[in-house]
Amino acid sequence: MSKGILTVVSGFSGAGKGTVMKELLKRYDNYALSISATTRDPRPGEEDGREYFFRTKEEFEQLIRDDALIEYAQYVENYYGTPRAYVEQQLTEGRDVILEIEIQGAMKVKQRIPEALLVFVTPPGVEELKRRLEGRGTESAEVIASRLKRAAEEAEGMDAYDYLLVNDVLEDCVEELHQIIQCEHCRVMRNAEFIKKIKEEAQALH
Amino acid sequence: MSKGILTVVSGFSGAGKGTVMKELLKRYDNYALSISATTRDPRPGEEDGREYFFRTKEEFEQLIRDDALIEYAQYVENYYGTPRAYVEQQLTEGRDVILEIEIQGAMKVKQRIPEALLVFVTPPGVEELKRRLEGRGTESAEVIASRLKRAAEEAEGMDAYDYLLVNDVLEDCVEELHQIIQCEHCRVMRNAEFIKKIKEEAQALH
Repeated sequence: MSKGILTVVSGFSGAGKGTVMKELLKRYDNYALSISATTRDPRPGEEDGREYFFRTKEEFEQLIRDDALIEYAQYVENYYGTPRAYVEQQLTEGRDVILEIEIQGAMKVKQRIPEALLVFVTPPGVEELKRRLEGRGTESAEVIASRLKRAAEEAEGMDAYDYLLVNDVLEDCVEELHQIIQCEHCRVMRNAEFIKKIKEEAQALH
Repeated sequence: MSKGILTVVSGFSGAGKGTVMKELLKRYDNYALSISATTRDPRPGEEDGREYFFRTKEEFEQLIRDDALIEYAQYVENYYGTPRAYVEQQLTEGRDVILEIEIQGAMKVKQRIPEALLVFVTPPGVEELKRRLEGRGTESAEVIASRLKRAAEEAEGMDAYDYLLVNDVLEDCVEELHQIIQCEHCRVMRNAEFIKKIKEEAQALH
């Protein structure tokens, strides 16, 4: 059994990342979502180890000191981070792990885990992004404006990703993400052991 | 319409490259095989521009001087090479071009065209390779021994390839090659124009 691949998914707010990932996990067995640790309080219905690992501030800071997080950040009052142990366990068991995270976090993950695969999700055009944000009908004009400003900043980071995933038709997009991850398993750099075996066998044969 | 991808396919003799490529072209419309130029005489049934571009020695050496070949080599008395114009034309028309070539040629192609995709085809194990070569029943023990020696040399070059394609079940192998090439179209580095457009749109919006 080969090791799983850690795929970091980022993208514009409103690009449909969440739906794509939910559909990917529904359709295929071999994926696991990374579960974040946070110091914020659980909301009704949330379970420790399912939506988040809920930790106290002291516990979280201990995780930081122990280098037990792949990356972390502070928003408002609370910490959010990616526990290394859970991700490593899933990868070792051969599952491909998906981690949804914004650009700064993605860059930190790539630094710590260079073999991570970085995928950026975008709608076919930015007009489409505006339309989707407005179409939700849940956000104020101000929030939409701030999201679009953020999109402009995020667009500047797209070049640091490995793959670009255009979310036009959901079904196609899910299938493409699946294929991208599965094809990555065929990368020469991810098959050092197999190549070593072939080389040794070939040397032995002639 | 986006530009096609040039995929260089190499692999052990007996790994089944030829069958995989024939099946790929039969199953999908969007591929074109690169056609080599050669100075050897056409065999019965071979047509200029179909199996090969048949050229005189003088014409071939003119192609070399004009830098009209992506790579070339001399075997025994004859030249063999990859005309740049035909490949470029297919790529520009949006077709993905497949070029079957041995390792030294593949390395030259990668030097000249860094965005070329290099795929190495191998059976699951080298014992299998020996079995397949012997199973053909057409080669002498001496030829098989020389093929296996060559395989040992070629194995040393595997690390220079992008993807490893294990030809176990033919159907799966063809599908994997197709997916590898199609997923490569999503690579960030192959989508500079789209990314530029998104960046400009995002800047304009907020």
